[in-house]
Amino acid sequence: MSRPLPWSVEPWGVGLEGLDTERLAHRESVFALSNGHLGWRGNLDEGEPCGNAGSYLNGVFEEHPMPYAESGFGYPEHGQSVINIPDGAVIRCFVDDEPLDVRRGTVRLHRQRLDFRRGVLERELEWTTPAGRSVRIESTRMVSLEHRSIGAVRLVVEAVDRPITLTVQSELIANSPLPEVHPDDRVMEALRTPLEAVSHDVVDGRASLVHRTRRSGVGVAVSMDHRATAPRGVHTETEASGDLARTTMIASLGAGDRFELVKFVGHEWSAESSPATLRDRADAAVAEADLLGWDGLVAAQRARLDEFWTCADVEVEGPLRLQQAVRFALFHIFQSAARADLRPVPGKGLSGAGYAGHTFWDFEAFVLPVLTATAPDAAREGLRWRHATLAHARRRARELHLAGAAFAWRTVDGRESSGYWPASTNAFHLDADIAAAVVHYVRATGDRAFERDAGLELLVETARLWVALGRWDDSGGFHVDGVTGPDEYSAIVDDNAFTNLMAQLNLTAAADAVRRYPAEAIALGVGDAEVEEWSAIAIAMTVPIDQRRRIPEQAAGYNAAERWHFEQTASSEYPLQEHFPYFDLYRKQVVKQADLVLALHFRHDAFTFEEKAGAFAYAESLTVRDSSLSAGPQAVIAEEVGHLGLAADYLAEAATIDLDDVRGDAEDGLHLASLAGIWTALVAGFGGLRDSDEGLRFAPRLPDAIGRLAFGVKVGGETLRLEIRPDATTYRLAGGDPITLHHFGERFELAAGPGWRMPTPPMADPGPRPTQPPGREPRSFDAAFGS
Amino acid sequence: MSRPLPWSVEPWGVGLEGLDTERLAHRESVFALSNGHLGWRGNLDEGEPCGNAGSYLNGVFEEHPMPYAESGFGYPEHGQSVINIPDGAVIRCFVDDEPLDVRRGTVRLHRQRLDFRRGVLERELEWTTPAGRSVRIESTRMVSLEHRSIGAVRLVVEAVDRPITLTVQSELIANSPLPEVHPDDRVMEALRTPLEAVSHDVVDGRASLVHRTRRSGVGVAVSMDHRATAPRGVHTETEASGDLARTTMIASLGAGDRFELVKFVGHEWSAESSPATLRDRADAAVAEADLLGWDGLVAAQRARLDEFWTCADVEVEGPLRLQQAVRFALFHIFQSAARADLRPVPGKGLSGAGYAGHTFWDFEAFVLPVLTATAPDAAREGLRWRHATLAHARRRARELHLAGAAFAWRTVDGRESSGYWPASTNAFHLDADIAAAVVHYVRATGDRAFERDAGLELLVETARLWVALGRWDDSGGFHVDGVTGPDEYSAIVDDNAFTNLMAQLNLTAAADAVRRYPAEAIALGVGDAEVEEWSAIAIAMTVPIDQRRRIPEQAAGYNAAERWHFEQTASSEYPLQEHFPYFDLYRKQVVKQADLVLALHFRHDAFTFEEKAGAFAYAESLTVRDSSLSAGPQAVIAEEVGHLGLAADYLAEAATIDLDDVRGDAEDGLHLASLAGIWTALVAGFGGLRDSDEGLRFAPRLPDAIGRLAFGVKVGGETLRLEIRPDATTYRLAGGDPITLHHFGERFELAAGPGWRMPTPPMADPGPRPTQPPGREPRSFDAAFGS
Repeated sequence: MSRPLPWSVEPWGVGLEGLDTERLAHRESVFALSNGHLGWRGNLDEGEPCGNAGSYLNGVFEEHPMPYAESGFGYPEHGQSVINIPDGAVIRCFVDDEPLDVRRGTVRLHRQRLDFRRGVLERELEWTTPAGRSVRIESTRMVSLEHRSIGAVRLVVEAVDRPITLTVQSELIANSPLPEVHPDDRVMEALRTPLEAVSHDVVDGRASLVHRTRRSGVGVAVSMDHRATAPRGVHTETEASGDLARTTMIASLGAGDRFELVKFVGHEWSAESSPATLRDRADAAVAEADLLGWDGLVAAQRARLDEFWTCADVEVEGPLRLQQAVRFALFHIFQSAARADLRPVPGKGLSGAGYAGHTFWDFEAFVLPVLTATAPDAAREGLRWRHATLAHARRRARELHLAGAAFAWRTVDGRESSGYWPASTNAFHLDADIAAAVVHYVRATGDRAFERDAGLELLVETARLWVALGRWDDSGGFHVDGVTGPDEYSAIVDDNAFTNLMAQLNLTAAADAVRRYPAEAIALGVGDAEVEEWSAIAIAMTVPIDQRRRIPEQAAGYNAAERWHFEQTASSEYPLQEHFPYFDLYRKQVVKQADLVLALHFRHDAFTFEEKAGAFAYAESLTVRDSSLSAGPQAVIAEEVGHLGLAADYLAEAATIDLDDVRGDAEDGLHLASLAGIWTALVAGFGGLRDSDEGLRFAPRLPDAIGRLAFGVKVGGETLRLEIRPDATTYRLAGGDPITLHHFGERFELAAGPGWRMPTPPMADPGPRPTQPPGREPRSFDAAFGS
Repeated sequence: MSRPLPWSVEPWGVGLEGLDTERLAHRESVFALSNGHLGWRGNLDEGEPCGNAGSYLNGVFEEHPMPYAESGFGYPEHGQSVINIPDGAVIRCFVDDEPLDVRRGTVRLHRQRLDFRRGVLERELEWTTPAGRSVRIESTRMVSLEHRSIGAVRLVVEAVDRPITLTVQSELIANSPLPEVHPDDRVMEALRTPLEAVSHDVVDGRASLVHRTRRSGVGVAVSMDHRATAPRGVHTETEASGDLARTTMIASLGAGDRFELVKFVGHEWSAESSPATLRDRADAAVAEADLLGWDGLVAAQRARLDEFWTCADVEVEGPLRLQQAVRFALFHIFQSAARADLRPVPGKGLSGAGYAGHTFWDFEAFVLPVLTATAPDAAREGLRWRHATLAHARRRARELHLAGAAFAWRTVDGRESSGYWPASTNAFHLDADIAAAVVHYVRATGDRAFERDAGLELLVETARLWVALGRWDDSGGFHVDGVTGPDEYSAIVDDNAFTNLMAQLNLTAAADAVRRYPAEAIALGVGDAEVEEWSAIAIAMTVPIDQRRRIPEQAAGYNAAERWHFEQTASSEYPLQEHFPYFDLYRKQVVKQADLVLALHFRHDAFTFEEKAGAFAYAESLTVRDSSLSAGPQAVIAEEVGHLGLAADYLAEAATIDLDDVRGDAEDGLHLASLAGIWTALVAGFGGLRDSDEGLRFAPRLPDAIGRLAFGVKVGGETLRLEIRPDATTYRLAGGDPITLHHFGERFELAAGPGWRMPTPPMADPGPRPTQPPGREPRSFDAAFGS
């Protein structure tokens, strides 16, 4: 881990002074803007210098061949990768004849700041050309949360002390280079210039480019228009060719004069629509934005975020960096999903090309719970996206000789794009993670229309997978053999506890849903015998137990395997997967990331407190946290079993992963699931939030370092907010019918109104703090936050 | 399986009349000539038409990048593939101005025949040009078993009834296309024109080409010279350029006149020597061959084969096709290894580019036992080749954090070239297979010099691997977890019985060898404590037992896994790996190829008769024989447990795999291990040959279909021959000191002389014949041989 960038520490934004041109890529990820449809990385307006150029449309990808040294049956033949769409954020300036480039001349001031409430990225720059002309530049950039297609930039250039001629080139640039998302040359070759120019137009100064991806055949249209003013007028010209559209504006500025520009960029894509249709839609979006004007867009952005924060905000009395981190996380999660109509949130959101822009189980298992609690409409769209990929998932299940649906482990459009089956195809728990997300979303929202139209089919088709995948033993037990659970340092195991327990939930939920929608179930071909089979399997599902220690174990026989030689492993040998072969990791007890611990969280109803405490302590002794997904769930269970200090340490780790670039790969984009882990550690951890059929359960308890914690969750469309202090918690419901809640197991009804205060019960002694493998302890809360 | 080609059925050769140009590639494999150094496929002299052009030097390969969809630690970055060296077998004829091409004009006679005693491929062709000129052509081709570098062709062209002008172009052609040895374009690209021309020379009509492989940097020199005569003289001209050397001969032939040509081709390669050195060596080989002349080469070839057959011949009184098949097998195995000085026998020998020319465990486990018994010098050279790759194997072990040596699963030069670790890197049993081959070779030959100079180090370094790879349990048992045994439908299992038992043999043998060579062992850093540890581990090695059935099982818990749904599997769904994903194969009970059954053979000393009978019957019920390696070992154990008819059926299957092209891939080369299986089924099966410290053991017993079986094995340099009839076996030792033998467990001393007759004891009822999965029964002996 290199020295963290000197982020500003503030409650409602994150900023950076100065300009370390060696570390631009990290900054670009942190300052990325998105609305779930469109994503713009925080590249400098002038395009260069640049870490990784990034402008994305969620769902736009290119296909590439999948290379194998030795192929096998069922291996995907084609992969998918996010690509750069024509970049509309670029605005280059020339002061007299000197191009604005921060590597030349003198930078007197450089400041960027992402504002969580206004949803804009601001930049201030004071720059003197090598010839001694000084300008002051302010830019404000947004990706509209209200208008799906729209990105916009406002640029102000002021001649500081001497007259200048200012030339501004505002552009759309296609085929910007993609970073190395795949190590294979042949793959990168397919991704080098994926866009083929289809048409370009300039009408009344509005320019548009239409492209099509060469292999995947996706059409992309980007249009732009401008409003520019300067005291002595602006000379404007617009031109377009295949891969470039450019509006050139020239203005003479006297000392103190200001050139003001607003740029509106519209983005549309489709695999079906004609180029002309796409262009017209992008043009229409630009025209609408132009009509609203910059101020209108800014106001709508603020309103949309105000609405979000009303419920979603998490207030933490503690280190300001923690307060900042949770809002940073919520902002990025929200903007990654806000307008993701029928789209998922990829592993990196739209903040970078890491993981080739693929969506993983991270989405349903880590990100969706946050969205369900804070922006349930966005959660619904993500689940509808999975539903829309059902045809691919059914085909994949048939290919594998299974039934129902086998969803893609990593994908852009729903087709499997993974190249190492033991840690992808084999991780069938994804099906149950999707089912659990459906259950969770419907419980939280009461959205019966969704449940009937999409949820039911997801539950039924995933349940069918488990019937085909598992087997009965002679004594009436049901087993799922030879699959891979969440922990990627194990693979091809029998009866992974997480998988089996999630499958159990899946089967039970499918049976329940069929009973609620009998007509729709018949249309899906579900008969009584099938539902009975699901229920029988759910009851008979095997959960492996370490009989000697009297705790559940990660998989059948797991706790009897050889223990990893932690004592002989140097800290430079982590992450282990980069220094040891899979065969050695797989056969030994070493846990990359929460697996059984995730089961203790997601299936909190399936274990006693003692089982949880014992299993957690055992898992802790083996868990090396070589995955960014792990700290959040570990915090949750540490809290539940009473180790509040340990929980705080894991919270702190989750909270610093992206801002401090703990893993050294934030340049490829933010870790959305890890950001979700900050919220989860606070809300499910210290808030004790658990989902159940009988209403939400809470068990709020604060660690020493946090004096007060307040957060909101959406329940049936209304906002429930909790304010937690060490001695008591106040529950407030903003409106609607009374709801049933549980406080440390005590059930109560909460009506809309001033709130209800419940005291915090005393805590039993949790015993000694669990220990981790040497050197793999979390950074302490105090060290992480420098308090 | 398509209709078999109409091979001649004869005791000492195999021939084919006619010319099915659609099926040339299979013919070319069957008619391949080799001496272990040089290999020439049975391509037609005139080069075209052609199935797969093939001329190889054992060890000459090109490197290529290894493509991975998702890479991992320890994955090889470079692969290796055999390539075509400059082809010296090509001789093109023109009759008047008409090029000889069997697809044009009229073929009146075409006959090819491989002679197992003379070691030549003969061809007769009567052809009439479209213009009505007829010629009669005889060619005889050899790859010298006596002169490593030399391939030679004798061509006779006779003008049948009218005068002709005959033009003959004899060539060396570089960069002949290789068949598709890898599905990845990028790999094939590297293999398309792997040879870079370095120099070419013509001196006194002798032409030479020197090339170097572009990536692997191997130098290859090929030289040729000619002797041509015709009644009215021959006009000769020789020219050479980068990729082509050509001698053009023109002769006017009257009706009945004969043109006679002998072509000598010399071949040398090295990664170190200079081009000039290589060229001079190839030239020298040609000069020597020229001095000996064609008759000299033919006589030496016959002498070398006579010597081989004296011991190696297997005489079978039964179907002539079986007699032919076993000699076909022995001929190909012998010629693949005869002059393989410090070289292995690749999976396909030098008969084709299949498996990219790689050597596998097939070599030590299947082919070497045949060579040890029949051509022990060749066996030694193969083991010395493994020894020469020790540096690579040590580096690989370090890379995997292991100790000792980890030999390459598939390779040309000793570096790992496999791309799917669960079925390659993980198959560590290879180390023990090598160790067992060392033990077996030393027992058979008493070659103490080899044992001291190479065997000891092989045993020590392989023993060290097991110490690093395995682990002790709390109750004093030793386990090898998470490895892959011979059966490729299982992977990543604990305590594979074959692996553990072979490792046990490995450890014990290493400890014994260290005691015999204490000084040399010290030089290898072996101390007393290390040897004690080996012995302790050997004693404590776990062999998994199915307690319920009281039989050994393939791996820990194997017999408790779900059984494959054989009843629902269509015959078109075999081989299973081409129709089902690995994850499903791995987690169920289905056996691709002999695994536990191979352990019953190789570690015959470790099981009781009842265990063998029970384990064999159980394995039979699961074994689908999707591998060509399987039939031989199944025949051996079927015989041992008394199922002679079943053993005969497996023998028949092994005997027909390549000639009948049962697997449909004989075009890529012969299955050397499967050919070895024919000998093994006869000698270890019906002869009951087993190796032991106390001398060879036999338990000869014939199935109904075989009236008499005679074979020889080398013991300490002398030939022991057995003549088995239903009622008794006669043992004859050709010379040397008396040896200890066992006949059905009865120990006796055999002195050189007229022979000793031992009666066959009565056989107990073996019980019902074991059954195989539906549709996976072997072809019956009678059906296979049409008797």
